[in-house]
Amino acid sequence: MTKVNLNADMAEGFGAYDIGDDAAMLKIVRSANVACGFHGGDANVMDRVCAAAKEKGVSIGAHPGFNDLWGFGRRRISMPAREIEAMIAYQVGALQAMAAMHGLKVTHMKPHGALNNMASEDRNLAEAIVRATTAVDPTIILLATTGSELFKAGESLGAPTASEVFADRTYDGAGNLTSRKRDDAMIRDPDRAVEHVLRMVETGRVRSTDGVEVPVIVHSICVHGDEPTGPAIAGAVRKALEARGIEVVPLPDVPLN
Amino acid sequence: MTKVNLNADMAEGFGAYDIGDDAAMLKIVRSANVACGFHGGDANVMDRVCAAAKEKGVSIGAHPGFNDLWGFGRRRISMPAREIEAMIAYQVGALQAMAAMHGLKVTHMKPHGALNNMASEDRNLAEAIVRATTAVDPTIILLATTGSELFKAGESLGAPTASEVFADRTYDGAGNLTSRKRDDAMIRDPDRAVEHVLRMVETGRVRSTDGVEVPVIVHSICVHGDEPTGPAIAGAVRKALEARGIEVVPLPDVPLN
Amino acid sequence: MTKVNLNADMAEGFGAYDIGDDAAMLKIVRSANVACGFHGGDANVMDRVCAAAKEKGVSIGAHPGFNDLWGFGRRRISMPAREIEAMIAYQVGALQAMAAMHGLKVTHMKPHGALNNMASEDRNLAEAIVRATTAVDPTIILLATTGSELFKAGESLGAPTASEVFADRTYDGAGNLTSRKRDDAMIRDPDRAVEHVLRMVETGRVRSTDGVEVPVIVHSICVHGDEPTGPAIAGAVRKALEARGIEVVPLPDVPLN
Amino acid sequence: MTKVNLNADMAEGFGAYDIGDDAAMLKIVRSANVACGFHGGDANVMDRVCAAAKEKGVSIGAHPGFNDLWGFGRRRISMPAREIEAMIAYQVGALQAMAAMHGLKVTHMKPHGALNNMASEDRNLAEAIVRATTAVDPTIILLATTGSELFKAGESLGAPTASEVFADRTYDGAGNLTSRKRDDAMIRDPDRAVEHVLRMVETGRVRSTDGVEVPVIVHSICVHGDEPTGPAIAGAVRKALEARGIEVVPLPDVPLN
Repeated sequence: MTKVNLNADMAEGFGAYDIGDDAAMLKIVRSANVACGFHGGDANVMDRVCAAAKEKGVSIGAHPGFNDLWGFGRRRISMPAREIEAMIAYQVGALQAMAAMHGLKVTHMKPHGALNNMASEDRNLAEAIVRATTAVDPTIILLATTGSELFKAGESLGAPTASEVFADRTYDGAGNLTSRKRDDAMIRDPDRAVEHVLRMVETGRVRSTDGVEVPVIVHSICVHGDEPTGPAIAGAVRKALEARGIEVVPLPDVPLN
Repeated sequence: MTKVNLNADMAEGFGAYDIGDDAAMLKIVRSANVACGFHGGDANVMDRVCAAAKEKGVSIGAHPGFNDLWGFGRRRISMPAREIEAMIAYQVGALQAMAAMHGLKVTHMKPHGALNNMASEDRNLAEAIVRATTAVDPTIILLATTGSELFKAGESLGAPTASEVFADRTYDGAGNLTSRKRDDAMIRDPDRAVEHVLRMVETGRVRSTDGVEVPVIVHSICVHGDEPTGPAIAGAVRKALEARGIEVVPLPDVPLN
Repeated sequence: MTKVNLNADMAEGFGAYDIGDDAAMLKIVRSANVACGFHGGDANVMDRVCAAAKEKGVSIGAHPGFNDLWGFGRRRISMPAREIEAMIAYQVGALQAMAAMHGLKVTHMKPHGALNNMASEDRNLAEAIVRATTAVDPTIILLATTGSELFKAGESLGAPTASEVFADRTYDGAGNLTSRKRDDAMIRDPDRAVEHVLRMVETGRVRSTDGVEVPVIVHSICVHGDEPTGPAIAGAVRKALEARGIEVVPLPDVPLN
Repeated sequence: MTKVNLNADMAEGFGAYDIGDDAAMLKIVRSANVACGFHGGDANVMDRVCAAAKEKGVSIGAHPGFNDLWGFGRRRISMPAREIEAMIAYQVGALQAMAAMHGLKVTHMKPHGALNNMASEDRNLAEAIVRATTAVDPTIILLATTGSELFKAGESLGAPTASEVFADRTYDGAGNLTSRKRDDAMIRDPDRAVEHVLRMVETGRVRSTDGVEVPVIVHSICVHGDEPTGPAIAGAVRKALEARGIEVVPLPDVPLN
């Protein structure tokens, strides 16, 4: 592997509310997952992040979530598949228009929070998300958690699909992210994050909290920008990758298999 | 004039709430102004209206409003021009994606309620709306009240611009819609609406409530679908126009001079 | 039994949106469950329903739901118990203040939709609801589905607790409401509703869709006002009860236990 | 004057969003204006602030705003007087219930942002706010900007009314707050704030940005908690007042008249 992507969620503020340090993250990552106004984000913060992403050469993707600002999209809501499709298309389209105002294109899509967790487990939901994205623009890259049902749905429906690992989250023996309720869910030390990422990139495996080695595919590495440690971890990871001759590029520049 | 458009606002329900008889109006009008989720509408009702519009050969346009569901977009909110642009682009893009799911294109844009009223009076606001629409897609037709600042802004910025009159609203001597607070603001009798429309179409003038004749341009005629009299008025107007050899067509088929 | 209550959910509109025929129901029922602005309802519709309830001598109760206007409070959302308490207290208090503007008191509380369904099954959730209501005003009557965990929680925590049956819903063999997804969930024929109610009132049992007889306690009978058949069913049920010498009274006038 | 109140706006976060340093301000001020879920705030943050206020002996008041989370209640929205009353009562009641959960009472009410600005200028609006508050609880103290229409409305309608000045805002020659758009609107230096407050407290006058001396009444002094300088200014002001033998007390302990 000589090219990998580094991404972060962004634009998750709302009105007077800020969350995460978008400016700092945009200097480091190469792709931005832009919240689309449902779980967070609004037209103004989307507009500002698109402008900044363009300036930095960062590629942008839609980061749609449940319509639950109060719960920040972290609460599971059961919806019929067709409503999921409509909800995804709406948010992707909203960002496409914001991007068009800046001469940009939306090149990837990654669901947020509970929607991403549900899509990682539920193939029907995952396929609804893929169908919606493809209907809006079949060239949009689906950014899906490694090994997830969403990744499998993307591949099986013929969508360009990238596999994502997390620099700042641990994994359990089933290859799922460790629950945020556990103390060891987050990796907050940049050195540990670097070691964690390099092992995944170099061995194609992650050592789970259970001690089991689980295979991973690494097209893209996510760092959480809403953690105070986000910029430090992202910076350390990028530097370590580049020191090993691995180019850190926007998602569309990563070869997908 | 041998071709004119007939339009109505649609998709203004939300979740469990219905408003207006979209199904009845879609059988009569040739263009639908689709609410985009801010003053009314949601991804599901947009989805359903796009499906029905496609079946009926009705062209669709974005009908963006203020982000004020409680006030149904009828309350004026002061916003900086750039925020207006972002708010318009967001909503137009959301509908474009819904339309894409049905193989449709968004071919026009008409602001809703207080936003339309403000854009009819305020050139700066009007230009912000035109800029946003054009940035998203320069072929989108701006549907603006005859004689309004929005119409002038569209023309001066080189956007395709259609002029709209109302079948069910009276006009004052300045050519503005009579305030809804007045008893004579609405026309609810189909025969009167037909007479009102035919005079505008055939003479290029409207007789105002003050008795003054005011010049109008009629590319499109709007009927309010949220009034119980909507379908009856729309049906009578369409029949009367066709009886005089005037074709009632989707907005993109109307020659804009 | 010589006194029973007849109730309906009300004030579930929002802004420009109406739902249910509150005016018709207020002429028939003796208690109104007033939506509190989360799943539906807003300060204005609450204000109007309080005024009308006062005029008709109808007692009012809070009808709090999840903060999910899009889903009309019918989608399950998982929340910590303390957040449930805060959400309930907030809504009850909002209605108390609206009631105070009309010289009324909030005399009961009944959760809405998914929140009621969850509270019927989950004792911890049910107790959180009871704690919140009691903390705000210990004289407020908890209106709970017969046989539910909410009813049990109310009794065990010492709150005044009334047991409710539905005039227009069928029951399964476990005594739960038949799922709305089934064709036989709703009773829409007034004669059948009357027969259904009279059997419950007179025998203390309901014949379930499985043919099993299930015991019920009938302090209050609910009719759904958002169904077009609501007023007809409520009227027929009230008339039939009164014809048998059973007084139909506001909830505080029903002897509990 | 030997007793004065020090207050700050609080609980203006929402879900995952924090704004202002409530914990720091609660250690210094003696009264908290608690956002009520419309312009900011939610049941959970209200719950937490009530708990903390109780612990610190800080009195609490309702801080209702327009239903405009996106605009943080800073955008003017025109509403009929009766809708204003309902909107105020709803929010005051919601906080009363949250307070009841902690054995507290809501002892004052101060409108937020654009609503406060409009109530300072518009007597009809101001009276609607006073009527609503009084209807809910006639002992609630109205906290109104010195010299404002809201202050006059409170006095003329016989409500307990306290006059407020700002430690961190400058005044113009008409006695109004200098527009936030001006560079000199905010006072961010604690020493200048102390001097500004002491002059008002000791002379009953403020020196406006125009150089004019304007009379003020000082029952309560407000410090903005959402400014980073909030805690430093509040601390310096409290210390300076106490050094002069002026007691800084909860609002109900300040003699009004």
